[in-house]
Formats: sequence, C-alpha cells, structure tokens
Amino acid sequence: MFCAGRDQEKDAKVCLVGAGPGDPGLLTRKAYDLIRKADVVVYDRLVSAEILALIPAGTARINVGKLPQCHPIPQNEINELLVSLSRSNRLVVRLKGGDPFLFGRGSEEAIHLSECGVPYSIVPGVTSASGCAAAVGIPLTHRGLSTGVRYVTGHCREDMELDLDWRGLADPDTTLVIYMGAANMAQISVRLMTQGLPASTPAAAISHGTTPRQRRIVSTLGEIASAVGEADLPSPLMFIVGRVVDVADQLLGDSCDEALSSERNFVQLG
Amino acid sequence: MFCAGRDQEKDAKVCLVGAGPGDPGLLTRKAYDLIRKADVVVYDRLVSAEILALIPAGTARINVGKLPQCHPIPQNEINELLVSLSRSNRLVVRLKGGDPFLFGRGSEEAIHLSECGVPYSIVPGVTSASGCAAAVGIPLTHRGLSTGVRYVTGHCREDMELDLDWRGLADPDTTLVIYMGAANMAQISVRLMTQGLPASTPAAAISHGTTPRQRRIVSTLGEIASAVGEADLPSPLMFIVGRVVDVADQLLGDSCDEALSSERNFVQLG
Repeated sequence: MFCAGRDQEKDAKVCLVGAGPGDPGLLTRKAYDLIRKADVVVYDRLVSAEILALIPAGTARINVGKLPQCHPIPQNEINELLVSLSRSNRLVVRLKGGDPFLFGRGSEEAIHLSECGVPYSIVPGVTSASGCAAAVGIPLTHRGLSTGVRYVTGHCREDMELDLDWRGLADPDTTLVIYMGAANMAQISVRLMTQGLPASTPAAAISHGTTPRQRRIVSTLGEIASAVGEADLPSPLMFIVGRVVDVADQLLGDSCDEALSSERNFVQLG
Repeated sequence: MFCAGRDQEKDAKVCLVGAGPGDPGLLTRKAYDLIRKADVVVYDRLVSAEILALIPAGTARINVGKLPQCHPIPQNEINELLVSLSRSNRLVVRLKGGDPFLFGRGSEEAIHLSECGVPYSIVPGVTSASGCAAAVGIPLTHRGLSTGVRYVTGHCREDMELDLDWRGLADPDTTLVIYMGAANMAQISVRLMTQGLPASTPAAAISHGTTPRQRRIVSTLGEIASAVGEADLPSPLMFIVGRVVDVADQLLGDSCDEALSSERNFVQLG
C-alpha cells in the first residue's frame, strides 16, 4: 500500500514524516503542509518545541515519547496506534526527529502499516547530522580530510554491550557521526583508541542542534566524553569525530564571534 | 564571518543552500524562502529542473555546472564568482543538490568566503540518500539488518584509482550508500566481493530519485553494475548496498502497484 515516487502522500492515510533537526525553518515544505493538514499528529521526544508549535490549535496531538511514568511507549504499541488512528481519521501524521529512515524505526512502522493494508507514505527529512554539522560549521566530508561519512548509534539496551565494528570505525579518513551516544561515549572513545584512532583526533558534541538551546563542545577523542560530562551538556547529543571538525576554526573566522573561535573544550551557546 | 546557530542567514550575503534530492516539496522552508528572495542564484547540474522552476522570473541565474564546451567550471572559479557576486548583490544563493556539507564541496566555498570576509551561512538540505531511500521504500537502517550507514563517493579523477577502505566497506551489517558511482560501480562491486561481501548482497540503483524521471533497479552486488548498464539508467545515480534493500519488498506490498513488487532486475518508472 506504498506508492513510490513523487506525490505519494496524496492518497496516504498515514504519513511518516521527518521533522528535521529542530529548527522549524528546516522542515521540508511537504512536512509543513502535512502538519497543517493533519487530523492528528503523533510525535516523540526528538521533535522540537518550536516545531510542535506549528501544529494548529484544533489538531489532536499524541506524545508517544513518554508515558506519565517516564517510560517510552513500546514500538509495537505505536505501530498499533497508527493503524487504529488511520481508521477514524482522514490524515495521520507520524512526526519523527531527523529523517524517518535513519535510526528512526520508521521502517518498522511502515512494515506494520503495509501488513495491515493502510496506505501510507514516507517524507524524508534533513538528518540531525546535516543540521548539526551546518549549524556549527563542520563539513561532513571535505577533500583531503575525509573521503566519506559513517553514521552509527551509540545507544544499546541496558543489558547489552555495544556491538559495533570497532576496527572498521577507527578509520582516520572517514568522518564518524554518533547518534544517541551520550550514555556510552566514554566507552566508544576507548574502543576507537584501542583500535588505533589517535586520542588527538578532533571531536565535537552538539546538544539540541539548530534550536535556540544549541550548545557545542569542540575537543578531542580522548577528552570529549569527560568534557561533555563536566559541561553537563543535555541530550539529545550528536557526536562528530574526525579531521573535519578542525574546519570549524576556518569557517567560524575570528571577526564574527570571538567566543566561537576560542580554545577547545570551551562551551558556548551557539 | 559565519554566525552559528539559528537565523544565521539573516545577515548573510551568500547562502550555501541544500536543494535536496530533486522534488521541490523536499526543499526546506528556508531554502524556498531564500530562492524566492535571492538577487542571483548560482546552481549546478544536480539541481532539478522542477526546483529551478521556482526561481522568480526576474532573478538572475548562473549555471556553473557546465561551460558551453561541456566542461564544468573549476571550483576556484566558482569560489571567486561567489565573492564577486556578493559585492554587487544583496543576497546570493548558491544552490547545491542534496546537502551542501555532504560531497557538495560546500565547505571549500565556505572557507573561501570566510577568508575573503564575506558574511555567509549554510542551510542544510535533505540528502539525496534520504530522498532516494524514502522514494523506493529502502530504510537506511533497520533493526536486525543494519546497525549503521556509510556514505562514500564512487567518483575519482580520471587518472587515479579509487582509494577507499575496501576491507572496512565490505561490512554486511552496515548499509553502504555510493554517490556518483555510475562510472565505477563494476570496479566497486568487485573490490567489495574480493573483501568478502557476498555477491548475493541486495543492491539497488536509483536514477533521478524523487523526480518524475525516477527509475530504480533492484538486483544484487554481483549483478547491479551490468543491470544498470543494460537498462541504460542515466546519472545522477545512487547505489544502496545491504540487507536493507530487501525491506522494499515488504514495504511496497503487493496490492498497490504490481510492477513495484516484481522480480529483481526489473526496471520501472518509480
């Protein structure tokens, strides 16, 4: 029940929509139109307050990020909720931070909708990585510094070890972007250094990127986890590791904002 | 001369703007506003005709993708052009396909503007990877199939070998997205298979993703290069390699569009 190509959302009952990194100006035109037309918007904690403010006053909204007891709603319940809402509404918008097909579990919701015969569509969004990178002047690729970029998640279930290809990840020629790494960044750094990535590799952490609450830290792989801890940088956090982080010094210049070109480990409001 | 954070483009003379994958509905709201307000738009061949059609009739437009002799304008000349245009215009929009900081050489232009003291800003865009993935129903990550995603470019200068970390790239647990791989996909496939990635690994090629000219092929790593050649699939092409490609079968369903759920190596209009 998924029609590929353009304007697929015309016939959709449920649209899985990327909300982008947080700045409402970085919503796509389609996302904005769908939010304005929806009968109900289902969202979670990665959608910014500024974007939620665009939902019309008369539109129903459902927060599936947290129950009153602070536990997130299980994925299978969200899947069921979308199907159930599609039966009693003309248009359900499922709004997800960033892009729904990159660490968004959008494909799990899509498969369930497909199995239940509910017409749906996917509207991609600006990834949090692209948003944060642009907001702090760090290119994801740059000739001579990085031949590519790699996105991993630093989150794992509490009872499990992070199971990543550490040897492949410790590649100085690839920019490494770590989503949801706040809890495990110390472990991740040690693993990468054990596999040979120098402790001096530039590393940045961006909190609430592209929003008025944006803060960033520029440090090194060896020190980024403790720097983030000392600064008490709140989630959601995005980590960028690689030589491209140094480009920020060139991009931010020294005449626009003195604070932004200051020493490593300096925290400031972006 | 770069101010990080939100609304940086308010004071910018030059905005480096991501145009997204091609569909004008996937422009960000900021990108759309800037295109409508610009005095001059500088664009290249990866910006779709549908997006160029949004530039107001009275706005100057400069194509830096090709000279009349079909050679692209060298990067240093584009850098100079942006500085020169910033002196005689209120707002210059430099429009780039996808996201300006992912294989867009946006950072090279940004560094030059910074060095020349020209105020500028970066507006991120939906990546071509996110756009193509959503348009053909292939998630970039999916629990149990892929723990992350990696973007590389398959393009190299004519006199050079592709210099990539083949061993690291041949990772069955990571989705591999190859930009600009049309000329070298046969070589790329062989290198990946030599390093142990099975020839049966699902692989897709998407041409002109998210536009009315979209076509896709679903095949395997062993056969994708010849399948693309036989189908004469035009550039720009995006390749996606990994187990996530199989999810398209589940997402496209069998009741919406028979053609889309048909056998591998079948080419169709998306």
